Amino acid sequence: MGTDQDSGEFVREALGVAERITADGSSPWPVEAGRYRLVGARACPWANRVIITRRLLGLEDAISMGIAGPLHDERSWRFHLDPGNVDPVLGIEYLREAYEKAVPGYDEGVTVPAMVEVASGKVVTNEYALLERDLSTQWRGLHRDGAPDLWTDPEAIDEIGKGIFHDVNNGVYKCGFASSQRAYDRAYDALWSRMDELSEHLSTRRYLVGDSITQADIRLWVTLVRFDAAYHGHFKANRHKLTELPVLWAYARDLFQTPGFGDTIDFEQVKQHYYGVHASVNPTGIVPKGPDTAGWTTAHGREELGGRPFGDGTPPGPPPESERVPAVG
Amino acid sequence: MGTDQDSGEFVREALGVAERITADGSSPWPVEAGRYRLVGARACPWANRVIITRRLLGLEDAISMGIAGPLHDERSWRFHLDPGNVDPVLGIEYLREAYEKAVPGYDEGVTVPAMVEVASGKVVTNEYALLERDLSTQWRGLHRDGAPDLWTDPEAIDEIGKGIFHDVNNGVYKCGFASSQRAYDRAYDALWSRMDELSEHLSTRRYLVGDSITQADIRLWVTLVRFDAAYHGHFKANRHKLTELPVLWAYARDLFQTPGFGDTIDFEQVKQHYYGVHASVNPTGIVPKGPDTAGWTTAHGREELGGRPFGDGTPPGPPPESERVPAVG
Repeated sequence: MGTDQDSGEFVREALGVAERITADGSSPWPVEAGRYRLVGARACPWANRVIITRRLLGLEDAISMGIAGPLHDERSWRFHLDPGNVDPVLGIEYLREAYEKAVPGYDEGVTVPAMVEVASGKVVTNEYALLERDLSTQWRGLHRDGAPDLWTDPEAIDEIGKGIFHDVNNGVYKCGFASSQRAYDRAYDALWSRMDELSEHLSTRRYLVGDSITQADIRLWVTLVRFDAAYHGHFKANRHKLTELPVLWAYARDLFQTPGFGDTIDFEQVKQHYYGVHASVNPTGIVPKGPDTAGWTTAHGREELGGRPFGDGTPPGPPPESERVPAVG
Repeated sequence: MGTDQDSGEFVREALGVAERITADGSSPWPVEAGRYRLVGARACPWANRVIITRRLLGLEDAISMGIAGPLHDERSWRFHLDPGNVDPVLGIEYLREAYEKAVPGYDEGVTVPAMVEVASGKVVTNEYALLERDLSTQWRGLHRDGAPDLWTDPEAIDEIGKGIFHDVNNGVYKCGFASSQRAYDRAYDALWSRMDELSEHLSTRRYLVGDSITQADIRLWVTLVRFDAAYHGHFKANRHKLTELPVLWAYARDLFQTPGFGDTIDFEQVKQHYYGVHASVNPTGIVPKGPDTAGWTTAHGREELGGRPFGDGTPPGPPPESERVPAVG
């Protein structure tokens, strides 16, 4: 990641390893239960997209999950929450080790999510957008009974997803990592104009596309759920708190209370990561005690808009014991 | 100002020049119309206390006012909003010059508010608490007709004022300037426990002490009005925004809409100062565009609690033309 020297705008770097895991033999990486481990982090919205997708589709048994902790050292994501600071399956301390196994001398960004082949210890892909799509399409044979269709209308999902990516998902980073007032102002305006548009869109619809949860909702939600804990203060995305935006706040609570969403969130890890890792934004490293998160479990009233959260499918069961997060409220 | 090396707690330094201006000849500085100039700054809550007091008592003609701009250089407060960057009455560029005239070799903090004798150019006092009290008592002969009594019950005002000072006025600084997590956590807890107590107190009373505005309300309000613009994000005082606290938000709006309060506030200068000057907290110096301030002028409903804002007195007229601030909303 870096900053454009002229405009002060934050520019997201291209990703490092982007192979595909396929069911049809079109890549060297076949879909296979137990063969891969998803490395995520509770803090990271990009990882959260894939973690939610895996939960909704019931892929927990087919793809195990390692969790990098919220705090970095100069070598980036590491397994500091695990006993001995080592991922129990991959046997590594730093996620960087899996990138180096895939690409000797790897010197690009170490990011989550990363799919790692357990036997070789190599990262297969960290391209979250393609990965989340392949979990729905290529991994279909291993989905749980009742797994929802998250791609009911791929064109509409990608269309609305484009604006969400540029102005919201990445938009909050552009606010927070701008190094000029002008670049910040521009990112702030784009963010809030998109937020207003999405709020308007969701004022009469329970979900973004069609009448059930799709990948578009997952994409928007991972930023909304972190909004007040990280982006509002730390990244100066502060026209309003999410709690002050009636439509988006109700929409975000609705999904939070839907199995597969809120049960992937650890607000403490979100705050520890953002406030603890970005020394250029928060040099003291002090982590705020707020915001109060009790509101997340309050009634949202969105059922009145109708919709069938899982379409013809069913909600996922509770997460595996080893993946439980602290309760909120 | 500084930080305790052991605890990481922010410690407010003792003030530099603290003489009194009196009506009874008990000090070398007599009360006299036109003799002194109050140097304030729109950004600063401590200056704001004295600026509001001066407005409510109608002392604008007796005591002129200079306004230091929001931005510092290494020499602290300066008159960068004035033509030629010079205060038109004192003829100085830096407030420090008036401190140095009073105390040759002055090397303590340069703070606002400061009362300066115009003829000699010397700071007479920067002790805001004593100054705001003396404006009510010593300067009584120069008050406007209908000036309110802001000290109806001095003991009660000082009693409630003590908690407000330690946990709220200075409490937000202790949150923002803490250099250890432990010191921050302690300041945050004290702040919010006091905020809850004040909210409870004000849920059945329109004002803090008695049934009209007193100096206690001025003291609390100068921090509340800056809360969302500066302290919530910049100082991590972020359990809730003021806008999320029904009682305190209504109380703050009620006073904002009362002549002498809101007409002293310039939110842009508040943000420029806090975000622009504290490089240790905000190294990029980028100033947030938020929060939206439109809510300040909305109905507050506090009239239902009764109370007589100015007691037996009357509201002040509009501020002098030269002291107008931009409208909010």
